[in-house]
Amino acid sequence: MRNANQRFTLKARPANMVGPEHFAAETLPVHAPGDGEALVETLYLSIDPAMRVWINEDPGYVPPVAIGETMRASGIGRVVQSSASGLAAGTLVQGQLGWQTLATLPASQLKALDLALGGPLDWIGALGPTGLTAFFGLKDVGGAKAGETVLVSAAAGAVGQLVGQIARLDGCRVVGIAGGAAKCDWIVRDLGFDAAIDYKAEPDLAAAIARACPKGVDVYFDNVGGPTLDAALANMVLRGRVVICGRISQTAAGQLYGVRNLGQLIGRRIRIESFVVFDFASRYAEAWRWISDRLRDGRLRQRIHLVDGLDSAPAALAMLFRGENFGKLVVKVAD
Amino acid sequence: MRNANQRFTLKARPANMVGPEHFAAETLPVHAPGDGEALVETLYLSIDPAMRVWINEDPGYVPPVAIGETMRASGIGRVVQSSASGLAAGTLVQGQLGWQTLATLPASQLKALDLALGGPLDWIGALGPTGLTAFFGLKDVGGAKAGETVLVSAAAGAVGQLVGQIARLDGCRVVGIAGGAAKCDWIVRDLGFDAAIDYKAEPDLAAAIARACPKGVDVYFDNVGGPTLDAALANMVLRGRVVICGRISQTAAGQLYGVRNLGQLIGRRIRIESFVVFDFASRYAEAWRWISDRLRDGRLRQRIHLVDGLDSAPAALAMLFRGENFGKLVVKVAD
Repeated sequence: MRNANQRFTLKARPANMVGPEHFAAETLPVHAPGDGEALVETLYLSIDPAMRVWINEDPGYVPPVAIGETMRASGIGRVVQSSASGLAAGTLVQGQLGWQTLATLPASQLKALDLALGGPLDWIGALGPTGLTAFFGLKDVGGAKAGETVLVSAAAGAVGQLVGQIARLDGCRVVGIAGGAAKCDWIVRDLGFDAAIDYKAEPDLAAAIARACPKGVDVYFDNVGGPTLDAALANMVLRGRVVICGRISQTAAGQLYGVRNLGQLIGRRIRIESFVVFDFASRYAEAWRWISDRLRDGRLRQRIHLVDGLDSAPAALAMLFRGENFGKLVVKVAD
Repeated sequence: MRNANQRFTLKARPANMVGPEHFAAETLPVHAPGDGEALVETLYLSIDPAMRVWINEDPGYVPPVAIGETMRASGIGRVVQSSASGLAAGTLVQGQLGWQTLATLPASQLKALDLALGGPLDWIGALGPTGLTAFFGLKDVGGAKAGETVLVSAAAGAVGQLVGQIARLDGCRVVGIAGGAAKCDWIVRDLGFDAAIDYKAEPDLAAAIARACPKGVDVYFDNVGGPTLDAALANMVLRGRVVICGRISQTAAGQLYGVRNLGQLIGRRIRIESFVVFDFASRYAEAWRWISDRLRDGRLRQRIHLVDGLDSAPAALAMLFRGENFGKLVVKVAD
């Protein structure tokens, strides 16, 4: 039924944990595309930690999602009707489709997928913002070099799994931090990480990192923040680099954890840096080629955690903050 | 009496605050200089926050001062006897003289002062490690550029007073954080800071920084760590840089403060970096010339807080951690 758009709007701002109670389902008529616009059928929606920040009253770096507005989400879709020159019906596109089955958007905000580089699921993960974040964060911000030790947290998550594999392909020794034996086994056996630390099973995470990284940590790629960051800071080598990519442990926390080990920076010349992947836009083609080549021949893999149906989107978002996803979390909306 | 050396040794390691009870006075015969050595009469001793770290069991980046060993300190002295070629008696030198009236040291560990660039008090402050730290920390690590806002803590202290003045000479807007009206008045009226914040009078330091830096902070030069760092992090602009130089608020603290605002880095591309001034050794001459030129014509000033007599050294060290120094703290040992 291409006349009706099913969507979820933001109903209320969560104080701490986000859940289905913060969203409202709606069905409404489809907006026919105006001049320069296209109507896109949503196929896949990416579920990202940043979405929890977007529904805060003040996300800081982007405008918040307004109450009553369609929940913001990036996704992959198929153009079903187009009033834009150069964008034909049937084209697969990437864009901020939102939590809805049919999105009417300016063609300028849609990017046609280059299917020579990868399929829709590649483009939502390893070739999308997730993969670009891993690629530029590790190589450019972290400056990881062959022979160095790279530590990555949320290592079985969307970005973490790619960071570890890219570092390994670049000749680094790679240690991943993840929750539970299944994730730890997978990153070592299937992805080739040199070691894994199950943070749920370690009473002293700093000591566990020291055992797994006997020469210390050259680059810590931080997806979680909080006490894990403290434990990593205690293990950085001289001129170590900490890449702050995310802080999922703190995103939904009622009380922020206070990081005590910043004093470790002094005397060790350590750098802590954050970044925004869009800053590297002029070099995306380089990353796409590098990633695509390695996806194709199997040197690089991505695990996608597929959840079925738009109705599952609100519950899926909550899964992220309980660490229940295993790989990149994606909602499959249509075939 | 050049046959007797008066010194202070480390008697006990302090748990938190350091005081005279941690040092022992001794008089012992002077070591005559052996081949390649010189006997140096101490004139001035620098009192630095790092000294509190050196007397910890594990300072991390340098060996600790051992119990019973002369307290380590850098200073300015005069060669009174020399068995080293190229180092004549009467030469003024800089070196790790320690808390003693007469030091016997290898000539290779002594640097003859270039009196064309400045006198002994210049060399213990603005031309010494203090000034080099301010110069390279601000310009190279912080990358402060004309028109940017620079915030500096401990702004009336040894490094802070120079950071603010150098930034101002480089065309930055400069805001200093200091304790008490006298220090705040001085940095604005005498040193030309654009504004000062008295942290002792501000219940909400982050809000006070926001008022004093309406466009946000481009470079925060941190000498204190702790809650002041948190308040600064809340005010950094996109691509802001935080230079971690010291953390005097935490050096002697029993319980480390937990920094909660690291999440501010994300989306703002903020960098936090520490450094060691010795990394810039190949460029000291450039800094000496720059600083010397400006000291000479009065564009750059340094306030030195002189304390008289070696006997005052242990109490002087404790003053630092109570914020009782006003300017760079120096013990005058002899004329």
